[in-house]
Amino acid sequence: MNETEFERLNILLQTNNLKFLKEELSDMTYPDIAEFIMESDDEKRAVKIFRILSKDISADVFSYLEPDSQTTIVNSITDREIARLMDDLFLDDAVDFLEEVPANIVRRVLANTDKQTRELINRFLKYPENSAGSLMTIEMVELHDRLTVGEAIKNIRRTGVDKETIYTCYVIDDGRHLMGTLPLRRLLLNDEDTPIREIMSDDDRLIFVRTMDDQEEVAAIAKKYDLLSVPVVDMENRLVGIITIDDIVDIIDDEATEDFEKMASLLPSEDGYLKTGVFKMARNRIGWLLILMVTSTFTGQIIEGFEAQLSTIAGLTACIPMLMGTGGNSGNQASTLIIRGLALGEVKLKDFFRVIWKEIRVATIVGLLLGAVNFGRMLLVRLITGNPVTNNVILVVSMSVCAVVIVSKTIGCTLPIIAKVLRLDPALMAGPLISTLVDAISLMVYFGLAHLLIPGC
Amino acid sequence: MNETEFERLNILLQTNNLKFLKEELSDMTYPDIAEFIMESDDEKRAVKIFRILSKDISADVFSYLEPDSQTTIVNSITDREIARLMDDLFLDDAVDFLEEVPANIVRRVLANTDKQTRELINRFLKYPENSAGSLMTIEMVELHDRLTVGEAIKNIRRTGVDKETIYTCYVIDDGRHLMGTLPLRRLLLNDEDTPIREIMSDDDRLIFVRTMDDQEEVAAIAKKYDLLSVPVVDMENRLVGIITIDDIVDIIDDEATEDFEKMASLLPSEDGYLKTGVFKMARNRIGWLLILMVTSTFTGQIIEGFEAQLSTIAGLTACIPMLMGTGGNSGNQASTLIIRGLALGEVKLKDFFRVIWKEIRVATIVGLLLGAVNFGRMLLVRLITGNPVTNNVILVVSMSVCAVVIVSKTIGCTLPIIAKVLRLDPALMAGPLISTLVDAISLMVYFGLAHLLIPGC
Repeated sequence: MNETEFERLNILLQTNNLKFLKEELSDMTYPDIAEFIMESDDEKRAVKIFRILSKDISADVFSYLEPDSQTTIVNSITDREIARLMDDLFLDDAVDFLEEVPANIVRRVLANTDKQTRELINRFLKYPENSAGSLMTIEMVELHDRLTVGEAIKNIRRTGVDKETIYTCYVIDDGRHLMGTLPLRRLLLNDEDTPIREIMSDDDRLIFVRTMDDQEEVAAIAKKYDLLSVPVVDMENRLVGIITIDDIVDIIDDEATEDFEKMASLLPSEDGYLKTGVFKMARNRIGWLLILMVTSTFTGQIIEGFEAQLSTIAGLTACIPMLMGTGGNSGNQASTLIIRGLALGEVKLKDFFRVIWKEIRVATIVGLLLGAVNFGRMLLVRLITGNPVTNNVILVVSMSVCAVVIVSKTIGCTLPIIAKVLRLDPALMAGPLISTLVDAISLMVYFGLAHLLIPGC
Repeated sequence: MNETEFERLNILLQTNNLKFLKEELSDMTYPDIAEFIMESDDEKRAVKIFRILSKDISADVFSYLEPDSQTTIVNSITDREIARLMDDLFLDDAVDFLEEVPANIVRRVLANTDKQTRELINRFLKYPENSAGSLMTIEMVELHDRLTVGEAIKNIRRTGVDKETIYTCYVIDDGRHLMGTLPLRRLLLNDEDTPIREIMSDDDRLIFVRTMDDQEEVAAIAKKYDLLSVPVVDMENRLVGIITIDDIVDIIDDEATEDFEKMASLLPSEDGYLKTGVFKMARNRIGWLLILMVTSTFTGQIIEGFEAQLSTIAGLTACIPMLMGTGGNSGNQASTLIIRGLALGEVKLKDFFRVIWKEIRVATIVGLLLGAVNFGRMLLVRLITGNPVTNNVILVVSMSVCAVVIVSKTIGCTLPIIAKVLRLDPALMAGPLISTLVDAISLMVYFGLAHLLIPGC
């Protein structure tokens, strides 16, 4: 969708040319129609567009809307329209929607849903947030394990229209236990009379998650095995739902966003940037800033304790921001790589010592080089400006740079792994927290070296 | 795969019980077999496992191996085995593999590939890295637009076994121009004599990318439209390939990793943490550390210029780390949210002023609160320790906290958007770069306020 197309649709809407608008919309994709609805500034206009959609696509479009637009629309349509909408929505989309909107909307919607669906939705709403159970849908193709390929295909043709995906079918026994999975592809490429038991994937190849598994687990499994949908089973291995790849893609984005937020000392937020209110946003930010503000006063205390020496020896104070900055950045580099490696499963707990050994070697190379560059830089600055910095000070600063890089990188790679061992989120052990720790240690190293190597310090 | 299973397979391997091992492997998924090969420490053992795989799955397993294991194996198998392997690999997996391994391997592999495939591979290797062309595969289902549903299904049954996916078919005309897309689902759920022209998605609904489009674009389109594969067309709208969802999932992870790396002032690396050598890793880190080290000396100069005042007025120096830290963290929060919002398409360039206005409001709330807390904290510390900090100093520090938060957040949200306008990567405008800038500005604000409000400063 480009600006011109939006413009054209908007003109049709403003001139009330609804017949043409409806025709234009029927040629558009659901996400594009949803975008058009969400971009219309005016609530009445949004509802107007939604209402001219033909009945068979309105639920599809609805599932692509953001929660606030969904609320607007549900607030403006009749109970009968709500009943129809809920009937047409896939269960996972209905649950998604109800999880995000205000409680009064949930009550009104549930009041207009048939009893069976209402019970199902209530059950789904009880699963913990971000668990497989809360994400799954029940509209999957289930095939009885006694069927042949031909019967299975007939079954899919008959029931497939209401399924969220038909590309992976799930084979169950009389007790609804998951016996195997069967890609539609394999069905189509086999003879009609082959029993599906013979061609389904089973035993060791059977991949599934349980209702209480976290979404991170679901995404990891889908990625590892390149699945288009992941089956969800209960404690008795009975098939209760599936999670499809479009939702898994969203999970992958959400998990990365959550890590970005945690690493920037933000409380994770489910909503997009522009959708989050100012007060909520302030609340998400203030907690960590307060903690970090208070802890960084310790760094100030360390400087204060050394104030007499700092004020008598030229050049020592001016290097403090550079040392703290270099330490923070070095630690940040290491922790980011480890956190991401852990999140993607590239780094595992058993690699702990390999990681530390690698970081120490990398840090030594980087530290020596940065120290040498700093040494040259300070000599050069003295030569040009004629400042009274002594050789000893230059040596101490350069050695500190090297030491600070090594210490920071070691801390940066260690803390996320320790967090993982303690079953905390490694992403919490990122930038700001490590910087604060590294700041204090950098200064102690710096002042310690100064005390040892500079006469009268 | 759990540890026990690995253990059992390893025992079979060590006792040379290859017949049983082969049987066990034939029950396993390709990713699990690949993991087993990669986990065997010994190169000979890895090759041994690969060689006992039955011929019809070895290419599938190969495509799940990391480049270094692929290299090991190709180094140890015969030219005939290479020829067979290349023949069985999907083109995109072959290209992926050849892009990552040493040049001598590439030469040997291409020498053992038939002329047609060799030409194709050479053409694919010429596409820019991370372009749609370099990621696509040519094994897609193409249907002529004159076919009926029944003929199309017959066509798929005949040719489907060699296709990377059959779930979305692409309809082309005599000139191979992309005319429409057709989910297999729609084919199966329609009557046999329906012409596919009537049921394919076309016109406004036709979604595709071009060979030179960046992978970020491909992922965005797949996510927006929930596609299982994205068609790739050339400048004349002829269908040249498709990119499947499993590769799109990898792109999403890669793009997020790249942003994590850039935001931690690392040069992006294609390899996983444990696979990257120590020297390469040092090289990826040192550039930004050097730049940031040199720029942070300016911050030092600012402190130096104020040294006389700092040494006479109690309490001023000790607050420097806290102010710089709070500024850096605040800016980091804002820039992270904007960078992620831009990457996910939630924040667009036209939202520029909305974003800044929002950040200023959030920053004011956060800044006032932090300033107030700091005020109370400093009063309390004075009460307890009896330090000689004056009321004016406490006021200046608290006002500075507030001002620094507002300035940092404004800078933090502005720079990534400006980068986007200038067609640079917003992720470069993150943490370390913003911290360095914010450090300098924080100190200027601090010293400015001190000069104005503290007598004799």
